[in-house]
Order: sequence, then C-alpha cells, then structure tokens
Amino acid sequence: MKTYKEMSREELLACKAELDEQYKEAQGKGLNLNMSRGKPEAGQLDMGMGLLDTLHGICDMTSEDGTDCRNYGELTGIMEARKLMADIMGVGDPSRVFVFGNGSLSIMYDAVCRSVTHGVMGHTPWCRLDKVKFLCPVPGYDRHFAITEHFGIEMVNIPMTPTGPDMDLVEKYVSEDASVKGIWCVPQYSNPQGISYSDETVRRFAALRPAAEDFRIYWDNAYAVHHLYDDDQDKILDILSECEKAGHPDMVYVFGSTSKISMAGAGIAAMAASKANLECIEKSMAIRTICYDKVNQLRHARYFKDLDGVKEHMKKHAAILRPKFETVLKILEEELGGLEIGSWIKPKGGYFISFESLEGCAKSIVSKCKQAGMTLTNAGATYPYGKDPKDSNIRIAPSFPTTEEMAEAARLFTLCVKLASVEKLLEQ
Amino acid sequence: MKTYKEMSREELLACKAELDEQYKEAQGKGLNLNMSRGKPEAGQLDMGMGLLDTLHGICDMTSEDGTDCRNYGELTGIMEARKLMADIMGVGDPSRVFVFGNGSLSIMYDAVCRSVTHGVMGHTPWCRLDKVKFLCPVPGYDRHFAITEHFGIEMVNIPMTPTGPDMDLVEKYVSEDASVKGIWCVPQYSNPQGISYSDETVRRFAALRPAAEDFRIYWDNAYAVHHLYDDDQDKILDILSECEKAGHPDMVYVFGSTSKISMAGAGIAAMAASKANLECIEKSMAIRTICYDKVNQLRHARYFKDLDGVKEHMKKHAAILRPKFETVLKILEEELGGLEIGSWIKPKGGYFISFESLEGCAKSIVSKCKQAGMTLTNAGATYPYGKDPKDSNIRIAPSFPTTEEMAEAARLFTLCVKLASVEKLLEQ
Repeated sequence: MKTYKEMSREELLACKAELDEQYKEAQGKGLNLNMSRGKPEAGQLDMGMGLLDTLHGICDMTSEDGTDCRNYGELTGIMEARKLMADIMGVGDPSRVFVFGNGSLSIMYDAVCRSVTHGVMGHTPWCRLDKVKFLCPVPGYDRHFAITEHFGIEMVNIPMTPTGPDMDLVEKYVSEDASVKGIWCVPQYSNPQGISYSDETVRRFAALRPAAEDFRIYWDNAYAVHHLYDDDQDKILDILSECEKAGHPDMVYVFGSTSKISMAGAGIAAMAASKANLECIEKSMAIRTICYDKVNQLRHARYFKDLDGVKEHMKKHAAILRPKFETVLKILEEELGGLEIGSWIKPKGGYFISFESLEGCAKSIVSKCKQAGMTLTNAGATYPYGKDPKDSNIRIAPSFPTTEEMAEAARLFTLCVKLASVEKLLEQ
Repeated sequence: MKTYKEMSREELLACKAELDEQYKEAQGKGLNLNMSRGKPEAGQLDMGMGLLDTLHGICDMTSEDGTDCRNYGELTGIMEARKLMADIMGVGDPSRVFVFGNGSLSIMYDAVCRSVTHGVMGHTPWCRLDKVKFLCPVPGYDRHFAITEHFGIEMVNIPMTPTGPDMDLVEKYVSEDASVKGIWCVPQYSNPQGISYSDETVRRFAALRPAAEDFRIYWDNAYAVHHLYDDDQDKILDILSECEKAGHPDMVYVFGSTSKISMAGAGIAAMAASKANLECIEKSMAIRTICYDKVNQLRHARYFKDLDGVKEHMKKHAAILRPKFETVLKILEEELGGLEIGSWIKPKGGYFISFESLEGCAKSIVSKCKQAGMTLTNAGATYPYGKDPKDSNIRIAPSFPTTEEMAEAARLFTLCVKLASVEKLLEQ
C-alpha cells in the first residue's frame, strides 16, 4: 500500500473522489455524536449510586474525630476524607491534604486567583507585577489554560515528550526567568495524550531551582487511579515527598478529585501541599467560606472506605471505558495504519486519545466531523490561547458515547482525516 | 429601684462587692458554654435528616429539564433548585437565580474578588483603582467585613436605625463618592440586631443614584424564612423587582442559602441578579468550575418540594429556637430591666440578639464571660476592623446551647454586664 505522500496527483484526486462519496453518505446518516468532553457515560454514574445510600436513615453523622458533619466547622475537611484523598492522590501524609467541594478546577482557579490578589506565602501579589508567566506542556488541558489566560498570565508552550514535558526547557525557563511563576502538569495519563511522567521527570521537577521564590508546580493528578488495565498500570512518584527530599517542600500544589470516580458533578476535591502552603491557604480560605460540604465528604469516606475500595470501583469504570478506547484504537489502526497521515498514542488510562494529523489539517478535520454530525473538542483547544502552531492536534474523548456510537464516530473521524489530508496534499 | 447611674459611690461599691461574690461563685462552676457563632444545634440538624434519604435506592437522577444531575453540566444550577432558591430568597423570577455550592459566603467572596480582578460588567477592575470603599451598616456581620478587609477595601460605618441603615447617609455617600462600590446588607432579621428593612428603606435602596456605575448592593437575605413566630413575621420587599421598577436592574446582588434551613455545612446557596449581571458572572464562573453539586440541588428540590415545604420545615426550627431566644430575653429583662446599663431588641427571627452596653463596657463584659467559661463573639466583631467606636455592642447567639445552658449563660452574661457597668461607673 502506498502512503498518501507517495501518491501522484492523479491518485490523490481519485482517492479524493472516492472519499467525497463516502463523506456524502456519512452526512446523510444524520449522526449526532459528541466526543468533545471527558464526560462519564450514565453507566459509570449508575455504578456510584450506592454512594447516595451511604448516609441513609437515622445514621451517625459524626466523623472519626467527633465532628458533626452536618454543621459548620472543619474548614480543611474531616480526617477520613483527607485520608481517602491522600491515598487517591498518591500523597503520603493526610495532614497535608485540604478537602474542598465538588471540583478540583475551582481549587486551581482559587490558587491562581489568590496568588494574583494576595501573593504566594507573603510574596508580592501577581497583580502588582508587570509580567507573570506559566509554562504549559502541550498538548494540554484547555481548562488549565483558560484559568491562566483569564488572569492575563502569559503562557509559554513546552513540548511534551514520551516521558513528560521537555525538562531541559522547563529547567531553563524556571531557573532563568523570575516571571515564571507556575507550570500546569497532568502527571499521570496526561490530558490529552495519556502520557505518565517518568520517575526521572518527577525527580527533575522536584530538583528545580526556580528564579522566583513563589514559583509553584500545579500538579493536577486528575487520573491517578484511572487505569484502563488491571495488569499494565502506570504509577508516578509522589511529588510532594520528592520535593521535600530535594529541599523544596513548598514548591508544589497537588490537586485531585473524585469527579471521575464517584460522580462528575457531585464528588469531592482536594489539594495537597506543604504545611507552610496549607497554613497560608487556610487563612485565606477562612475568609471565603466557613466550611465545605462535609456530609458529602463523609458519604465518600464511608462508601469507598479506603484505597482498595476505590481501586475495586475503578475496575468497573475500566470495564466500561476499555472497549471504547480499544474500539477507537482498532479503527484508527485499520483505517489509517500505514497511510502516514496521522499518529496517536495508545493510552493505559485517563480519558482521552490524542491524535496528531498532518500539519495544517486539525481544524479541517474537526470541521468536517462537525458537518457530518459529530462534535469534537475544538482544534487548537489543547494549546494555550486555542492556538496550535502546527494545527495538528485533536483530542478524542471516548467516554460519553456508547461503544457502538464510538465505532461509528471513529470511522467518520478516520474518513475526515483522510479527506482533509488528501485536500492538504493536493494544495501543495 | 435606683438605676446604676443614680447610685452614689458608696452604693456602687456595695453593689460591686456583692457582684464580685456572685462572679466568684459563677467562676467556680466550671462552665463551658459557647454562644459565639450562629450555629444550629444538633436537634435542628436531626430534623433535616430526611434530606439524605431523598435520593435513595435506584432513583431517577434526572432534573425536570432532562439533565443527569450526577454528570457535568448546568453551571447555573438545575431549574427546580433555582425555583426553590428564588422562592426562599423572595425573588420573583427563577431565571434570575444562579445556584452554587454549599455556602453563600463564598458567593459573596467571589463576587468581590471578581470585581477586584476583572471589574463589574466591563468596568475597571478595582485592583487598578486607588481607593475602593464599601458602606457597612453597623452593627453588622463580621464575615462580610472580613471579605472587604481582605481585599483592602475601605469600610465606612453606617449606623443602623429601627427601619434599616441610615438612608440619608447611604444616599449621600453613594451619590457623591464614586469610590463607594458597595454596601453590605442583611435586610431581614439583620445580623446581629434582628432588624428588618422597612418598605421605605428598600425603595430608597432601589432609588439610589450611585456616582459609581459599578456600585452594587450586596443584599444578603440570609434569614428570609427564619421566623421565630407563626403569627408575627417580617416580610421585606423584593429588592430585585424594586430595582428594576426604579430603572436600576443591575444595581443589586441578592444572596441566600439553605445553610440554616437544611444543614449548616451541606446546604445549597444562590445568588439572584439581573440578566446582565448573571451573564457576566456566568462567563467568569465558567472558567472557575464546570458545575456545582447538582445532586445536592436535586436532593433539596425534591425534599422541600416548594416554599410551603420550606415554611413547614422552618416552623420546626422555630420551635427549637424560640424558647432559647425567649429565655435570654426574659433573663435580660429580669436582671437588667430598669437598671439602664444596657438595651436590646427583641428579634422576630434570625439567629442573634444584639446587646448594647454602656459605652466602653463591651470588651470588659466579653472578657469577664470568657473568664467564667462562656465564649461570646469578640467585642468589636460586629464592626469593621473589629473596632466598635463605643465599645458597646455584643452579639449573643442563642442557637447552639440547650435552653437550660442558655438560661445559665444569660444569667452569667447579665452578671458580667452589671459588674462591668459598676466598674465603669466607679472609674468616672
């Protein structure tokens, strides 16, 4: 079989004619598929319904340490929830964990916002600085980038490698530029590539010597227990301990949540950090709220009991997600294998498959999919400011549609990839 | 009976000797009472336990408009929760209500914070202004003042009257000073005095002509359905409609929550505002979070059903709170009536009794109570910066202790009032 690049103009034109036919046919099907967000399907949520039965009837609403979870108090969360979140996030010490409300994104937003208005642990508030920069491993999570953009923080692209962000570049920026105040990381099963940071990468993070004392690593360990396979799982090092060992205990904020463990809208979320960081955050948070929802914290702690409970639960999620991922990967391979018009990584966990098209094709592919009834994450969304310099990255989110829909979607996707690629090659 | 002020020095000294004896005796009791915060007692929380049974078993988790409440989505809240909160907050139109997480304080914090970092509806962010001021009706709610202090906003005391804040002063400041960007209000059963704003006061608020276009009334309707009596209830006008009628639809943010209706730590909270305000807030909130906890929203909507359900529930709260309030008021009258060393207002709802001592006595009273085992809200807490210029206001929170404890506490309190007053008069 010839790759597309090896085809003559005539061959490409013939190929295009055939693809146009197939595309017209696909458009005729009146599809309505959405693969734009990493949203659990209803079956995953059904599995967590027991959560809502946990605090049923006249049950004891007292936490281990005697707190009435229904009342005000315990700003940092009840200890059993702090333990559970520490385990999930791979953090050794539950006293370093602050449990918040139902989403980790707002914890990250608040962390950045607090730094803007009040500064980090006594340092100058960022709103008084001329320039604040964040490093952004790319492709990455659009909602991270939206937060930093919202606060006028300049974002610097850092290419991802198979073992994590390009650490030579990270080290250079962090050690030389005092306006670099943070880096967004999804260290395990990264969004969208599914890459897990190697031990060396984590250790190099912990060994960073920032020019800015208020530099923090924003370590969003969103997919810490979100494995697709029982026997082939990634496990990253505990960055909090590594930073402590390296003599930089304050350099990292770790984030996590149960949004994709229990319920997407009704989970609990947490942040882990050094004692000094937590004290500073607690002081500020005490102005913002009296406490977070401890009833939901208790519900989660009693339902999952411990990390083993979480792991068992996550196997059920994997059973639902695995066939969807495998369906997409199988069809990508069947339809695009050997054509050299795209590449992808087979993830072992997380919520996404990242697709690299030929340069300059991503927007066209997403648009063609849209016109045939399938919504993908906007092309460019995986880059700061929505600008993918090569216009080549597309994030595929297989969780929400059924496996059957996913198969249909993947076939349509590969068709659009082929068509956009042929058109691109014909332009040249 | 002579008032304290009518007593001769000898009479005061004799009185003091007797009070010293009583105080020593009280100290010997080893009391441990806390009346510092407006915290529900366990019995009130027990009454809401049915809430946790509402979503039991394999129940339908779909909202009226077809949203799966367990999943991501519906940033502004599900419609049944918006309706419920509109009813509770006395706001006519549920489409003007945005339902958030478990506390209204954080909504207010975020509203101020957003104004600081991004400005109000396109106006200059407050962080770029030399001076921002808030009007603070006093005595008032310490956590309101803490938010504005946190952001370096200058607070201006506005005296309360029996019908609400001194509106002559409010009108003068708001219309003449463009640096005045807000005013904190608890319009019904105010914290701590239990005063409800008269219709005229509400209409004068709605008719304000602010010098600053980004001036907003921060209308914390925290005790909207928190009546102590069935037959003698206050009802304030709907400020949102009044502002609309007066041609200033954007001038007010209304806040409310079920914290003291369902569960103090696990309720739902909401904000009501004009369409233009809500659009601006939603845009910003979409960066901060994907959605709030809709499962808890659904739980509340299904448990309370409607305003009648809430009213029935609040009667049970009143049955618990009323005897505590009446006990305190009875003892205040018995012990202090006619002595002219203090005054108080009999509230018809809310969570507090406000006590006015002789000038310069509040700190001394609170300290004496503390040394006898009873914690009150810090003297001064009801004023911005913790500075009560007359050192005379003390907030009493009768909800948490039992009625028996409350009786003991009230007796100790009146003893300390007498002692501090005698000491003060002897100084002169």
